[in-house]
Amino acid sequence: MAKTLGYDLTEATHGRVVITSIPTDNHLNPAGNVHGGLAATLLDSCMGLAIHSTLEKGLNQTTIEFKISLVRPITPETGPIRAEGVVLNCSRRIGIASGRITDKVGRLLAHGTTTCLIFQSEPNNTG
Amino acid sequence: MAKTLGYDLTEATHGRVVITSIPTDNHLNPAGNVHGGLAATLLDSCMGLAIHSTLEKGLNQTTIEFKISLVRPITPETGPIRAEGVVLNCSRRIGIASGRITDKVGRLLAHGTTTCLIFQSEPNNTG
Amino acid sequence: MAKTLGYDLTEATHGRVVITSIPTDNHLNPAGNVHGGLAATLLDSCMGLAIHSTLEKGLNQTTIEFKISLVRPITPETGPIRAEGVVLNCSRRIGIASGRITDKVGRLLAHGTTTCLIFQSEPNNTG
Amino acid sequence: MAKTLGYDLTEATHGRVVITSIPTDNHLNPAGNVHGGLAATLLDSCMGLAIHSTLEKGLNQTTIEFKISLVRPITPETGPIRAEGVVLNCSRRIGIASGRITDKVGRLLAHGTTTCLIFQSEPNNTG
Repeated sequence: MAKTLGYDLTEATHGRVVITSIPTDNHLNPAGNVHGGLAATLLDSCMGLAIHSTLEKGLNQTTIEFKISLVRPITPETGPIRAEGVVLNCSRRIGIASGRITDKVGRLLAHGTTTCLIFQSEPNNTG
Repeated sequence: MAKTLGYDLTEATHGRVVITSIPTDNHLNPAGNVHGGLAATLLDSCMGLAIHSTLEKGLNQTTIEFKISLVRPITPETGPIRAEGVVLNCSRRIGIASGRITDKVGRLLAHGTTTCLIFQSEPNNTG
Repeated sequence: MAKTLGYDLTEATHGRVVITSIPTDNHLNPAGNVHGGLAATLLDSCMGLAIHSTLEKGLNQTTIEFKISLVRPITPETGPIRAEGVVLNCSRRIGIASGRITDKVGRLLAHGTTTCLIFQSEPNNTG
Repeated sequence: MAKTLGYDLTEATHGRVVITSIPTDNHLNPAGNVHGGLAATLLDSCMGLAIHSTLEKGLNQTTIEFKISLVRPITPETGPIRAEGVVLNCSRRIGIASGRITDKVGRLLAHGTTTCLIFQSEPNNTG
């Protein structure tokens, strides 16, 4: 379950979250590269988590949009990758963040920015 | 293999490609929604295929960037979804396309635009 | 005043607005092209107006983000250009729209998408 | 001439360019704010210049697309603003950069990312 997400949360401070993942054959597209969807999933996750890390109890956040730049191919040979999300600004209703995926020697593989809507959690969903 | 892509190609004309998919529990994020990565994967795929459909033999294309707007949640209850990519413009080096994901009653679930780089295939890779 | 905006509102229906402009030497960048800022200004305007056209009295909208693709150069030789904004979706808090700038023979010059925040106007500002 | 651009180049190193501007009434939109087009113009300029600063002689660059997030209103009261562009990656054909506009106390007003196409200058245009 949730297998396609496939990442570990490795660092989390106020406004900054790092997740790591190891691309596998499961993420291949027909051309033999790991699909842009993997970069999108990891960037959406680390940027959303970074925004979430700044919210007071009772608030939640959902992605409205994100943009992803694919800088270098990600393949099973890439090895472990790291996605870092950092909050750029967070107002009462809108949070924006940027994110970067790097390989094990720190080269940029993908970059993204996102806009999230911040809202009051429903009482039953608060946790 | 390629399990995480999970879509069928259902229509393809010059500059326009439609793919369909059925979201499953495999695509759930921890919040119980299907992850934005699924929308990104489907939009990246249909937009890239739409651009590819306009290329002469010997040319190939790779995604440089895409932007995705998430309009409505996609969950396993959504049922089959349809992603349509349409070329906006294709020059010698750059192709741009837009895409939309709709549910079975035609409501917009997600929207995207992309920029692809067009390049000469390496002889060995031509097919 | 507002001289740098330099456009006329030529069509407006629910969810769709067209503005027109004539690029001049005032919009040139050092390379002799009309700056991407002109395309951005026109697209931001027509997309924001399209969203505004769907709002009930007492609501207002402000741009959170937009993305612009520059397809063909816009120069003083281009002649009159037309920017059309169309709403893609409008919920209680978020409106998204796309826009396209075309020349006098209908060729695509630029394309954009935007996300706007919808909010209650302050009483003094209503009107 | 080029009056609508209205900025000064204040710093330029390899891969990083800073420009400054003072918003005036000329940039007002009908709502009394400085139009998003100003932020777009400044960000497009500083990001494109940052990419240009990394190019070898004989190469040139043109903007394919950019995305802008408007974080805080920019008005004539904002005073002088500063736009800094930084290259994220530059390959043989594609350059990507991010940019940020800040006010005099360093608060983020707008953020952007861009994709530029790099090409051989025509001999007559080199210089």
